[in-house]
Amino acid sequence: MYYLNKNIENLYRIFDQNERRDYLRLDLNENPGGLPQEFIKEVLKSVTPQFVAQYPETLHFSEVLANYLKTDISHICLVNGSAEGIRYIIQAFTSKNGRIVGVVPSYFMFQVYCEMYDRNFVKVPYNEDLSMDINNIIRELTDDTQLLILLNPNNPIGNVYTNDEFKQIMVVAKEKQITVLVDEAYHYFYPQTFIRYALYEEHIFVTRTFSKLFSMAGCRLGYVAGWPEGVKMVQKMCTPHNTNAFAMKFAEAILTTPGMLDSLINKFKEGRTYFVETLDANGYQHKGEAGNFIFIKPKTDAQTIVDRMKNEKKILIKTYPNVGQFGNCLRVSIGEKRYMKQFMDALLEFDK
Amino acid sequence: MYYLNKNIENLYRIFDQNERRDYLRLDLNENPGGLPQEFIKEVLKSVTPQFVAQYPETLHFSEVLANYLKTDISHICLVNGSAEGIRYIIQAFTSKNGRIVGVVPSYFMFQVYCEMYDRNFVKVPYNEDLSMDINNIIRELTDDTQLLILLNPNNPIGNVYTNDEFKQIMVVAKEKQITVLVDEAYHYFYPQTFIRYALYEEHIFVTRTFSKLFSMAGCRLGYVAGWPEGVKMVQKMCTPHNTNAFAMKFAEAILTTPGMLDSLINKFKEGRTYFVETLDANGYQHKGEAGNFIFIKPKTDAQTIVDRMKNEKKILIKTYPNVGQFGNCLRVSIGEKRYMKQFMDALLEFDK
Repeated sequence: MYYLNKNIENLYRIFDQNERRDYLRLDLNENPGGLPQEFIKEVLKSVTPQFVAQYPETLHFSEVLANYLKTDISHICLVNGSAEGIRYIIQAFTSKNGRIVGVVPSYFMFQVYCEMYDRNFVKVPYNEDLSMDINNIIRELTDDTQLLILLNPNNPIGNVYTNDEFKQIMVVAKEKQITVLVDEAYHYFYPQTFIRYALYEEHIFVTRTFSKLFSMAGCRLGYVAGWPEGVKMVQKMCTPHNTNAFAMKFAEAILTTPGMLDSLINKFKEGRTYFVETLDANGYQHKGEAGNFIFIKPKTDAQTIVDRMKNEKKILIKTYPNVGQFGNCLRVSIGEKRYMKQFMDALLEFDK
Repeated sequence: MYYLNKNIENLYRIFDQNERRDYLRLDLNENPGGLPQEFIKEVLKSVTPQFVAQYPETLHFSEVLANYLKTDISHICLVNGSAEGIRYIIQAFTSKNGRIVGVVPSYFMFQVYCEMYDRNFVKVPYNEDLSMDINNIIRELTDDTQLLILLNPNNPIGNVYTNDEFKQIMVVAKEKQITVLVDEAYHYFYPQTFIRYALYEEHIFVTRTFSKLFSMAGCRLGYVAGWPEGVKMVQKMCTPHNTNAFAMKFAEAILTTPGMLDSLINKFKEGRTYFVETLDANGYQHKGEAGNFIFIKPKTDAQTIVDRMKNEKKILIKTYPNVGQFGNCLRVSIGEKRYMKQFMDALLEFDK
């Protein structure tokens, strides 16, 4: 008798990321500018037939990354984009019908994985003013909760936790023996990180990606940081050779080329400053600039703006429905100033 | 209370593929020679900052691949190496404790996934003479079997099924309503394929990889072929953006560059002819040349040969213990003639 898992049969997935290459892409929080062409040329110069033909080696890059994080390789597991790491943490550290607490709206894959693997995802909503009251999170940390998922900063709202707030949450998670996953996909755009908890305590993971500031979304690379026993469990879940040689080569070059990371951060900051100031000057309510995206309350219909941006200006942005006092909003990725200017010019033309 | 899945806690995984780059690698069935350097240079010439920074687009390459397979994209799902596709098929098309039938020895991940996901893997062994009696497979196709896993050709034994044998198996699988997965990782080295069943019938999948003949193991790319409803289920399981832009770029270039595939096949065949003839001339029993590997019965201790190859000649090969009448054997990947000569010279020196 043919068997098909009901969860998979009923699962709804979106697959829409194609035909984007001719647009200015401000919809998926990539870096629209990317890495310098000269740098890319230099990285690819040493690619040999063996490099392409051989199963990727992870040890060397793991050491480079561990060194950069001031830890050792027992604390990190490389993954094919952080979504792969998140998946394995959910699979290994929660059970069927297991209780997982997370804030919404958020990165959509948390809920997709929970449906896929029959987990009980308990949603903590934002306040009407788009702030997050940590007491609402703490209230959900029941004795039978297996995993708490936080984002720092959050996507799409872009709020952050203070050190003190995070500490309060961690005290309760520890007391109730709940594993904590903090997704720091948007680290570097905002300096606050909780990775020290993952590196020095137990039962907390931090996931990070090379798709955002590192401008390597096409390559696919992320990592899970955590305590050695926990990381070993994630590693055991990995599909063999999950991370490819090109991704590791680029990430190593960025981490070890003096000034490269700073240069990416500075270009981003320049774009953000321009963007925020221009939004302010034009009377826009906005939120979320702790990540590489801004959440904007438009003056007219959000969907119409998204459509006109796409059709008339070849600019891709996203809309989120019914988000607190912002109502139907726009989410726009932040990149270099010239791209922000392109977007602002279009917004001021359409949104009136 | 912290939760950890017992299957993962108890799972044994091997992670040993590092520090191989300075060796002649004949242990993992890669192509030791790889793609021509000029071809690689040409492929990488057009890599832009956007190409690296943008989430990979799959539609274009899916169409190229579908066109090559004379089918349409509803019949294929791209995966990050075929091991990812195999994982999703097991997850979606079998249940907890579900019965999965497969031959042993085989690709080790079938059993790893079964342990990971608590499946009941029923092993069909080879005969003492390393042949496979399909009646032994058919006998295990009970009413409660959910999945039958075959390899064509098999690894590491390298046996193949005739059209008639495969048809007999398929008749029973259909009658008992058992989904069938045929891993064709070693297609191209041997012309026999059963992909037409995956493209024209239901409840049969074929997985293929770009790591072997295509010489792209460092890039990570594979695909699942099957009936549209089945393929859709595999797609729903995928981690977002599971396949990277570099892998698709190389695979497209190989598929669309006139003569490239033929050239890879011819170089391989030349190496295999030399290798088989030299083994025969020196009185070696061998088996398995339907894949890009040969299974050799050594005259002296297999492990000693493996160790000396590594330490004295910087050549990596593998040993398999207790395989039928071959006992402790060597498995050696087949590549261009010059690499086969390098190995044979070392074998004749050590194995006496």
